[in-house]
Amino acid sequence: MSIHAVKRAQCHLAWDNSIPPAIHIESGDTVSFDCLDASNGQITPAATVDALASLVFSQLDQVNGPVHVAGARPGDTLRVDVLSVETAEWGWTALIPGFGLLADEFPAAALKLWTLNRTEGQAGYGYAWFDEQKGIRVPLRPFAGEMGVAPGMDGAHSTIPPYATGGNVDTRHLSAGSTLFLPVEVDGALFSIGDGHAAQGDGEVCGTAIETPMKVTVRLTVVKDKPYVKTPHFHTTSPHASTEEFYCTTGVDSDIREATRSAVRHMIAFLGAEHGLAPADAYMLCSVAGDLRMHEVVDMPNYVIGMMMPKSLFTK
Amino acid sequence: MSIHAVKRAQCHLAWDNSIPPAIHIESGDTVSFDCLDASNGQITPAATVDALASLVFSQLDQVNGPVHVAGARPGDTLRVDVLSVETAEWGWTALIPGFGLLADEFPAAALKLWTLNRTEGQAGYGYAWFDEQKGIRVPLRPFAGEMGVAPGMDGAHSTIPPYATGGNVDTRHLSAGSTLFLPVEVDGALFSIGDGHAAQGDGEVCGTAIETPMKVTVRLTVVKDKPYVKTPHFHTTSPHASTEEFYCTTGVDSDIREATRSAVRHMIAFLGAEHGLAPADAYMLCSVAGDLRMHEVVDMPNYVIGMMMPKSLFTK
Repeated sequence: MSIHAVKRAQCHLAWDNSIPPAIHIESGDTVSFDCLDASNGQITPAATVDALASLVFSQLDQVNGPVHVAGARPGDTLRVDVLSVETAEWGWTALIPGFGLLADEFPAAALKLWTLNRTEGQAGYGYAWFDEQKGIRVPLRPFAGEMGVAPGMDGAHSTIPPYATGGNVDTRHLSAGSTLFLPVEVDGALFSIGDGHAAQGDGEVCGTAIETPMKVTVRLTVVKDKPYVKTPHFHTTSPHASTEEFYCTTGVDSDIREATRSAVRHMIAFLGAEHGLAPADAYMLCSVAGDLRMHEVVDMPNYVIGMMMPKSLFTK
Repeated sequence: MSIHAVKRAQCHLAWDNSIPPAIHIESGDTVSFDCLDASNGQITPAATVDALASLVFSQLDQVNGPVHVAGARPGDTLRVDVLSVETAEWGWTALIPGFGLLADEFPAAALKLWTLNRTEGQAGYGYAWFDEQKGIRVPLRPFAGEMGVAPGMDGAHSTIPPYATGGNVDTRHLSAGSTLFLPVEVDGALFSIGDGHAAQGDGEVCGTAIETPMKVTVRLTVVKDKPYVKTPHFHTTSPHASTEEFYCTTGVDSDIREATRSAVRHMIAFLGAEHGLAPADAYMLCSVAGDLRMHEVVDMPNYVIGMMMPKSLFTK
């Protein structure tokens, strides 16, 4: 088994099976990627909120690769073992006008910069302060928001939405130790990765996580006996301690998206009333640390969606 | 503080603020309820699948109460501390034609009876065998699927859907030790409870959990300082050990409900391929033990919904 590297500049801005491979590897090989954050370097540790006004959207969500894996054929499965994920020492979270679950209710841009201190935690990553004065901190559990293979359908497909072949799945559970399975649609699979997240809740409700440059290492293996993998599947471990306590707000509505928005809106109200957070800050905290769960989806006409916030965030 | 009892026969079939209270209590009092299962006794431990064909739907999902809590006024919050939940020694799960997230794909009725053995587990409840030969068992974590207060709007409202005032929220996290907050809309709150579930995943995707008669004890307290509680809120603890491992299938679609259906459909395919389960059995297992999470809801136009299955179910 060999170890390979994909450099920071070896990236692309669309899922497109005509993009030539950055490297060729054998099945079972390991690849390390050096990735800029999802702003493609447009946001820096010195940025202010003004940086959001001049963001060039066509440069966002670049992914590094593609990696050609020998022996991968359409109908196979690509097994992606996430071996390690390293963040930079800083990250950012933003409200980008027009983007996010409550975009209509949060028209103003906002930018939050984070210090990501690797040494605070016991197992590599610990916590980042969200508001040190208020004693609110977020557990770090880094992962790549983008992992995908080239689609069988020709043409350039935006890297913003996720697809059945993966891509911007923004799934918090894909941290180091997890295994992702992707359906292969083209010869060589053409795997790419990007969008470093130091922490994110299920949903990524404000549209951004703790975004950060990232070094990520994965092992890529072609699997022939999982024809049932037609969308991303994964194996992972619980993100929470068994002693974790949660406060949950729910949304109840006949429209799932509206129920989801209501759950988030109520958590923002709760965080304001009980923890003194301004709405934009509360919305960002929901995005980086709160989990959306679908409590019931069958008692028609109404759905119950929950936004669950770990109580361990609040140390005062 | 006094202890009160609501009997099995003290139940009603609609949320309706004109239903006279079964009992009157003071704020802070404790009430024990003796509840039939959600079939209102129509399904028995000796039932066969034929019992589903003769189900009288208008008798389903009765709730016990209402309990009038002195001092509760519209705009207040009712705090419900779930002190204990006891199941019967049996339970049932069914596919009821026309009901459930994949109703169109599972037109045939199916009924599964469970033995709920209290002594197997270390903390009161342990596991129930789903398929002893295959070594598949489900952890029991009983809760009431229905907890609610009377709506301010006059008239009889079905007990099948949940509302902002609670009701059939079918939320697995409301087990013993949790605290539910409900917005009060009428004098006395008029709290009722029912729909015993021995186990359920987030979603209750096939439409039924492990349904069971239940004895449940709650403490009801009027709270005046939580005006932000406009939908059910709750405090709970993690349902999983920190060492829990999961296998997750995802659905990726521009329609949230279709993404959800796809995630469940792929878990059914996985359980068939890897664990030899028939589709109807796999669908029921998803309902009683699998959790629906919304991994991302912002990367438009596509949502990623996950069905996460604990690997500890599979002991062989």
